[in-house]
Amino acid sequence: MSIFSNEELRNYVEEAKKVAKNGQVATYIPELGKANPLDLAIAIHYPDGNFVSAGEINKKFTLQSISKVISLALVLMDRGYDYVFERVGMEPTGDPFNSIAKLETMKPAKPLNPMINAGALVVTSMIKGSSTEERLGRLLNFIKLLANNDTVDYSETVAKSEYDTAFLNRALCYFLKQHNIITEDTETLMELYTKQCAIEMTCLDLAKIGLVFAMDGVDPIKHKQILPRDVARICKTFMVTCGMYNASGEFAIKVGIPAKSGVAGGIMGSLPGKCGIGIFGPALDDKGNSIAGMKLLHLLSKNYKLSIF
Amino acid sequence: MSIFSNEELRNYVEEAKKVAKNGQVATYIPELGKANPLDLAIAIHYPDGNFVSAGEINKKFTLQSISKVISLALVLMDRGYDYVFERVGMEPTGDPFNSIAKLETMKPAKPLNPMINAGALVVTSMIKGSSTEERLGRLLNFIKLLANNDTVDYSETVAKSEYDTAFLNRALCYFLKQHNIITEDTETLMELYTKQCAIEMTCLDLAKIGLVFAMDGVDPIKHKQILPRDVARICKTFMVTCGMYNASGEFAIKVGIPAKSGVAGGIMGSLPGKCGIGIFGPALDDKGNSIAGMKLLHLLSKNYKLSIF
Amino acid sequence: MSIFSNEELRNYVEEAKKVAKNGQVATYIPELGKANPLDLAIAIHYPDGNFVSAGEINKKFTLQSISKVISLALVLMDRGYDYVFERVGMEPTGDPFNSIAKLETMKPAKPLNPMINAGALVVTSMIKGSSTEERLGRLLNFIKLLANNDTVDYSETVAKSEYDTAFLNRALCYFLKQHNIITEDTETLMELYTKQCAIEMTCLDLAKIGLVFAMDGVDPIKHKQILPRDVARICKTFMVTCGMYNASGEFAIKVGIPAKSGVAGGIMGSLPGKCGIGIFGPALDDKGNSIAGMKLLHLLSKNYKLSIF
Amino acid sequence: MSIFSNEELRNYVEEAKKVAKNGQVATYIPELGKANPLDLAIAIHYPDGNFVSAGEINKKFTLQSISKVISLALVLMDRGYDYVFERVGMEPTGDPFNSIAKLETMKPAKPLNPMINAGALVVTSMIKGSSTEERLGRLLNFIKLLANNDTVDYSETVAKSEYDTAFLNRALCYFLKQHNIITEDTETLMELYTKQCAIEMTCLDLAKIGLVFAMDGVDPIKHKQILPRDVARICKTFMVTCGMYNASGEFAIKVGIPAKSGVAGGIMGSLPGKCGIGIFGPALDDKGNSIAGMKLLHLLSKNYKLSIF
Repeated sequence: MSIFSNEELRNYVEEAKKVAKNGQVATYIPELGKANPLDLAIAIHYPDGNFVSAGEINKKFTLQSISKVISLALVLMDRGYDYVFERVGMEPTGDPFNSIAKLETMKPAKPLNPMINAGALVVTSMIKGSSTEERLGRLLNFIKLLANNDTVDYSETVAKSEYDTAFLNRALCYFLKQHNIITEDTETLMELYTKQCAIEMTCLDLAKIGLVFAMDGVDPIKHKQILPRDVARICKTFMVTCGMYNASGEFAIKVGIPAKSGVAGGIMGSLPGKCGIGIFGPALDDKGNSIAGMKLLHLLSKNYKLSIF
Repeated sequence: MSIFSNEELRNYVEEAKKVAKNGQVATYIPELGKANPLDLAIAIHYPDGNFVSAGEINKKFTLQSISKVISLALVLMDRGYDYVFERVGMEPTGDPFNSIAKLETMKPAKPLNPMINAGALVVTSMIKGSSTEERLGRLLNFIKLLANNDTVDYSETVAKSEYDTAFLNRALCYFLKQHNIITEDTETLMELYTKQCAIEMTCLDLAKIGLVFAMDGVDPIKHKQILPRDVARICKTFMVTCGMYNASGEFAIKVGIPAKSGVAGGIMGSLPGKCGIGIFGPALDDKGNSIAGMKLLHLLSKNYKLSIF
Repeated sequence: MSIFSNEELRNYVEEAKKVAKNGQVATYIPELGKANPLDLAIAIHYPDGNFVSAGEINKKFTLQSISKVISLALVLMDRGYDYVFERVGMEPTGDPFNSIAKLETMKPAKPLNPMINAGALVVTSMIKGSSTEERLGRLLNFIKLLANNDTVDYSETVAKSEYDTAFLNRALCYFLKQHNIITEDTETLMELYTKQCAIEMTCLDLAKIGLVFAMDGVDPIKHKQILPRDVARICKTFMVTCGMYNASGEFAIKVGIPAKSGVAGGIMGSLPGKCGIGIFGPALDDKGNSIAGMKLLHLLSKNYKLSIF
Repeated sequence: MSIFSNEELRNYVEEAKKVAKNGQVATYIPELGKANPLDLAIAIHYPDGNFVSAGEINKKFTLQSISKVISLALVLMDRGYDYVFERVGMEPTGDPFNSIAKLETMKPAKPLNPMINAGALVVTSMIKGSSTEERLGRLLNFIKLLANNDTVDYSETVAKSEYDTAFLNRALCYFLKQHNIITEDTETLMELYTKQCAIEMTCLDLAKIGLVFAMDGVDPIKHKQILPRDVARICKTFMVTCGMYNASGEFAIKVGIPAKSGVAGGIMGSLPGKCGIGIFGPALDDKGNSIAGMKLLHLLSKNYKLSIF
């Protein structure tokens, strides 16, 4: 029932790896600059519990923007559809993920969607809990459940590195505070948000999480509904319309798999009803997506006709 | 093998029709202002040749922006993927469909995607042919083939009405001429474009066209590949990421069916592998989409779990 | 040598006061909301030491944006022309004074001019001194010298009120920190900036400061050059091109006097070689300028042909 | 009573000419590309009828954007203050002179000022007359009167060259037609506008025109009021706030003389009560102003303290 064998996958990884040298690791979060740009790993997790993998699959990486999908799922469960979408929109945008300009021209100043930084900050501010520890703990527990891995944690070093340099995210926070979209203390939110972004795992963990979204919220191995079907559907939809920064449209055309990327080089894919995909390739293209990871997904989608369209 | 019976469909149409009074017919093209805002019609065409329908199904309406998908398909066949996407982008935008501002901030001034007016004008300018008549004839023949209806034609009255008032589209044209994205004469292009937008048909014709896109470019009744599978896939992808003006993201979340709307009140839907949908409801919401048509699709998608996500 | 008598001035104040009811006191800094919207006071200070005045001339008000001109003068003396204008531009803008959008489209992200908030924050960050106290003390001493009044101080209540609610200014700060235009700690800068804005005085004090700028930096009473002629000239130029928020162009046309307004309702005018003007009228128009103060200056300029153009 | 001797002026011209090689002649209007980039000429006209000059003073050049000031003066006389400023604003802008983006965000879509292209097109559309010939004739007659030179005419070659390539101006026109700010036929307006821009003269003619504005609308040689004092004042104010494209703010700081430039390399200066200045130097800086002309004015203003501020 697997789409690929490990052998096939290895060949595609070798092929995709060739473009890694054309990308660059993220440096705006200093700690991310230490990654090896030539790494490339993939794991594909099937509903029957089997998985295939290739490349440096034991390397851990931080979720960064991939966490936006997961925090959205948690917040939709915490707060409900109406509450969430009163505070963040559903529309893709042609602007960069960290843009502030559009907020100023929108009335009200509601972020366009939860996948850009402004929207993700609003989402994180909606995570329930009486303290930062409790809120982060709830998010981590949710992720452990999704990944079926109790050892998942965040990297203190990366969280600290991002916290110290997140001036643009603070600018977005304060802008949203001005407009009452965010009401909590900025530094509290920045602490929670940077720790969320710094949650780390392997590509197999990520593939497992992608699988739950692919299977409408069900963990097919434990036969357990982890999140409501509607929440899984909403998240997959955002992955298509705005999951790959402002290359989302091109990715939907070329690859057509619901996916979310992060600047540490991770990509989580969710092929509805079929499989979850986890990729790690830290060299990024100019839009902030893993350059070799994109190539690898393009090759797989093209050769195995994986597009949902 | 049909999803719905005529009876069921009729009930949903009655239910959806209630919101029509909250919308307004388009008036910026004077001729469109004459439609009855309370009309609502739907046809669903299945691969086995059967169809169901309800409402004022014999009323004809002009395609308007729905034609953007079809001209894109033709141009992809005429010019190939690379040529087309050197001239128009693939990214959704948070701006209105007729916005010019973003073009100014983009380097180069390439329109973000073929579903906004700027991009559609570029696409239409790529339709091959030695004269306006020949180019329009080629587009019409392609549409007749897709709809399996040789009587499809454009409305001279609507084309004229739009041609006389299309100042904003002329502004976009000239802006794109300045940047060498469009090179042909503006008035020639405006003539071709407004006639393209004024092509008219019933919702059953439109459902039939939607079916061909749904079936990967194959007319399932004639068992004939009308357009390449990749072209059908690309078009469906754009329908999801930018088919419903700047309510595309919300539509993808709430409905999840690849669809394209037009300001005459038409919506074409293409449910991959399943069916084509044609809707006509001229009362529009504030984004320019058929208000009752959106409601109808929302009801159907929710109750029959039609979302592709 | 005076242009007006007290009597004349009183009549113009009565006339201008009639429009005060059409304006509103600023409420975004809560403490400012307590002012009496019907107040209107003016003082005109001549080089020979005489002055005329009318209205509630003993009421104190905070400088708010008027302080931007004075901090610019100090910083030009502290750092020199080149250093300052490498970090802030000279161009007027059609955007609101607190806009952030333009910063994003500019490369580099240098604020367009020192009269908008982004630029003023950069200017304040350049005030020399080893502590906030020392920097504020230097600015206060400079203002005491300009006003020839040793009792000038800032309002702790207003400073605190503004500090607590200055989310948008913090957003601007962090955006500028991201781009290395501002390098100091945001909260330190916010403390200094809000205290600068909260410096308070009467309209006669303000007229005296305006006089020094009008007289090319010379205090004509003490016959002392307080600031270099070039600095006075630069400040007056900015007062014309961007002194009255985004009504500066209209004000230059209708009034033609170099002037700077603040949201507490103050306006400082500097008529080159002739006089300094101080106005206080807390009811604001929709651009943030004293509505009765604008009317008063319009009447005076029109009837006495005061425009420099 | 002259400020400079011919001898002095010659030295400044030699000095300023050195930077000409760092500029480039305009090429977007093909005909302008034929100018000699190393030319630099200046004439200064005094109220007593005397003038000084230096450089290639016999070369003719087209007014281009300088004509915007003159058409504004005519239209203010034709239509009155209220009529004009209901259709065009008074505010400077940080955007380029040919920008269209701001129009889209403004409600209503009124151009910010008459010195940017959008505003100038609106102004030209307000020139009275029953035919293009009559309207152009009225403008030409007004200019002949101002220059005291009956031989002034427009260059058919330059007008044609600009008409053929003015795509961006057509885009602006159509955008403004969409919003009912311009109501006349676009091609008619383009013909009138490009001929207006192509009016040509020497720098002495231009200095004479500048003198009339400097003397509050009076031709001091003929002792005749050519335009109302208020119209002259309004025009000079716009020259300061938006006369030098988006280097107007910097020019006001550095030079401080009301002035208007054109892309053919001309600059008209009006020093209130003192003199008119005409400059021709076709090599432009990156903002579209004569690079050597700017340098020359900077040298003169600095050494003779000509700033009005």
